[in-house]
This record gives sequence, C-alpha cells and structure tokens, in this order.
Amino acid sequence: MAMKLALYQGPPIGGDVEAGFARLGAQLGAAARAGASMAVFPELFLPGYNRPDLHRSLAQPLGGAWTDRLAALAREAGCGLTVGWAEREGEVVYNAATCFGARGERLGHYRKIQLYGPMEKASFSPGADYCLFDLDGVPAALMICYDVEFAPHVRALAERGVKLILVPTANPEGFDFVSRVFVPARAAEMGLTIAYANFCGTEGELTFAGQSVIAGPDASLFAAAGKGEALLVAEIGISPDPRFLSTQLADFRKVC
Amino acid sequence: MAMKLALYQGPPIGGDVEAGFARLGAQLGAAARAGASMAVFPELFLPGYNRPDLHRSLAQPLGGAWTDRLAALAREAGCGLTVGWAEREGEVVYNAATCFGARGERLGHYRKIQLYGPMEKASFSPGADYCLFDLDGVPAALMICYDVEFAPHVRALAERGVKLILVPTANPEGFDFVSRVFVPARAAEMGLTIAYANFCGTEGELTFAGQSVIAGPDASLFAAAGKGEALLVAEIGISPDPRFLSTQLADFRKVC
Repeated sequence: MAMKLALYQGPPIGGDVEAGFARLGAQLGAAARAGASMAVFPELFLPGYNRPDLHRSLAQPLGGAWTDRLAALAREAGCGLTVGWAEREGEVVYNAATCFGARGERLGHYRKIQLYGPMEKASFSPGADYCLFDLDGVPAALMICYDVEFAPHVRALAERGVKLILVPTANPEGFDFVSRVFVPARAAEMGLTIAYANFCGTEGELTFAGQSVIAGPDASLFAAAGKGEALLVAEIGISPDPRFLSTQLADFRKVC
Repeated sequence: MAMKLALYQGPPIGGDVEAGFARLGAQLGAAARAGASMAVFPELFLPGYNRPDLHRSLAQPLGGAWTDRLAALAREAGCGLTVGWAEREGEVVYNAATCFGARGERLGHYRKIQLYGPMEKASFSPGADYCLFDLDGVPAALMICYDVEFAPHVRALAERGVKLILVPTANPEGFDFVSRVFVPARAAEMGLTIAYANFCGTEGELTFAGQSVIAGPDASLFAAAGKGEALLVAEIGISPDPRFLSTQLADFRKVC
C-alpha cells in the first residue's frame, strides 16, 4: 500500500461542538493539502471524552446531523475522515467512531467494545462487532483506545486479513507506555500498521498523554507526536525490512 | 513561546527545480492551513544535495530569482519558510539556507560552516558567520546539518540568547543517531528547541535516514518522522518540566 495518513492530536473542544467542527474542517483541509487520503482524530472528539455530563444529552444518531456534517467535511476536503463521537440509538448510547471516505461515503462505523473504567461504563453500552472495510484497496478496521491494547482483538482482525487499524483514542498522562510499547507491539505482532490519534491538554481533571503515533509492521514509527498539539502526515507505503516482519499470525500454536 | 512549527521531510526533487517549487508551495500551504507560522525544509532542497553536477551550474545569487520566488511562496501561504539552496556569489558557491517570514521578508540568511565530506568540500566554500534573528519574538538561528552536531557551535548560539534553531539537513542512512541522540542532546545541553528537517528516499547512491525531529529543551520530541515522506506540524510552546532543564550554559567551568 502507498498511502498518506494524517493524525490530528489536539486539546478537547470544551463541549463546544461548533468549535469542534471548525477544527475538524481546518485540520482535515491541511491534511488534504499535504497529500493525505485519510485523517484520524481522537476518541469522542464530539462532544468530548471526559464529559459524562454531555455524553447522553448530546449524543446523535448515526445518519443524523453530525454524521451528515462529517461526511460533508470529508467531501469538501477531498480527504477521508475518521473521528470518535457519542452515538445514540434509541435509549442506548455508544462510544463510536466512523470512517468516511474522500467522497463523504461511510466506509465503516464502530462501537467501542472494551469500555475503560467507571466513567465510560456509566456513559456507554459496549459494542459487539468488529468493523472491517476496504480503504483504497487496503483491508482496514476501526478500534477505539483500550480495544487496541488487547492482543486477542488485534489478532482477530489480522485473521480476517486486516492490514491497517485506525484508532481514535483518549489516553491519559501516565499511560505513555501505550503509545511507546503496546501500539508498536500490536502492530509488529500481527504485521500491520496502526494509527493511534490521541488528545493532548486537559479536560476537567484529566490530562492527556499526547504521544500519538503511526506504528508499522516492524514496530518502527512512521510518525510520532509529543505532548502538544500536532498534525502528522506520513507516507505509510514504506516497505519494512522483511527480516523483521512477524510471523506470529501463522506460527501460533494453541495449547489448552 | 507559543508557536506552531512545521517540518517537511520528503524525497529529493531529482534536479527538477520547478517540481521543487511546486512541492514547497503545496507543503507550505498545508503547514499554514494546520496553523504553522514557520515551515522548515531540507538542506540544498534546490537543486539537490547529492548533485555536485548541479551545485555550481544552477546556484543562484541571494536576491535572485529563487529567493524572490521563495519569498512569494511564503507571502502567498502566509507562513514562514526556511529552506536550503545552493547560493552563488561571484565565483564562490555556498551551501546556504534562508528563513523568510510570513510576509515574505528575509529574516535570516546562513552559509553552512561545517562542510561535511569530500563532495561538499569540492562543491562549496564554508560560511564564516552565525545567523541570528527574531522569529515572532523568539531569538532564533539557522544551522545546516553537520553544524548542529558540534556542541561548541550550539553553545555559541545559546550564549547569544538563541532559543530556537532551524536546521535544514541531508542526513544519510546509518546516521540515525544524529536524530535520535545528537539533536536532542544539543537541545537539552543548552535548554533550547531544535527543528531538524531531513530528506527521505534516495538520490544517486545516497539513501537518506529520514527521522526528522523537533527536539525540546528537556530532550523530548515535539514530533518525529519515520523513514518516509512526512509533514509534521507541532506546537512548540509546551513548557517542559523545569526539573529537567539544563543549566549547562551557566554552570560550565572552563579548565585550561
């Protein structure tokens, strides 16, 4: 695959959804101008991660105003868009992420399976399905934050042929090891690429780790952010050294 | 300082100066759209680093067509531009870099002091002066590639108050330790920020290391690229932990 991928790492929108759409539009436009075909934004970017006061009250349905506007942003920029948002279906609320293609078409919609901690478990119901789709010829999938830390989930996607996982996240300070170790490990274990887009800054009492990364199948990083706001646009078509490509997918011997 | 800085890492232009200007314009536009106020491109981007066949024949004077066009690109994008190019002054040719502000004004012009290896020494005459200037209130300087590896040069800039060094570079494969160790070390030794913009890909028999970085005064990275094409845009106004700020500038005790 030869593809330029963008990650946006920024501070939370402070519950200001209009400001969120404006930021999405500006950063998506920049990513497109730099040649990206897909840009990944953080988890629950709309209306905010550490905003349990807003999750249920602002959550929108799939196919509602938010997804229409997100699709329009992708279409206007001519660049794919993956972003996390609070989804309502009847009385049920999900921690969701949607991937739109460069023509605004919906490529994938995902509901976080591994809810993390008391706040998330109070706000959201867990999803029950993996989300696989074709991204310009690359077998791709969505995960959200804590999901990607679980080797069995990444293995399950790899067994289905996935080569690229897009991961909106909201990883707090103190958990830098997720970017530094878990994400590159997950990528190298299964020989795939993982784009992990985090927040920076603070939201209430929560400070985020930043450290967004795109990790390749030899555990090297195509791009990495520090602790502050950043837009990373990187070519992910670089062939890794075949000597360092994992064969864990084929080699695993199950013992009971 | 609160400033967004961009680094562009890409393959050489293959001697095609028009393609080079087109790439500069597109990536500068993307950097501006992402909120950057200054974008740094590699060493001798015009007409190429490993092109001794072109250095003397294509070198342009300061104030000539290339610098006029570079100034216009900065002005049109509304974003500062720092880029390396081959400069001719009479019969003398320099490995130069110029920093233009967002209105196209020339903020600094620098000639590489530490020429590296036989090719550079055959093509160019060394510069003899540091280049300091004010970048939106930040005391800044230009260096080129090998220059920044020398602690005495970085110390000399720090002694003059410099807080930010912009470094177009052309660092080959096998020298990844420059990005990984030298640049963060230089930054932390003197408590300043260094933006180091490299090539990726190949040029003749030379393969570049990529690994462009923006290193901060606590040796942490604001952003880092891998081995492929990348545009990094990062906020560099994040305050580092004061416990990890070097006092080497004040503490040095000279012994004869």
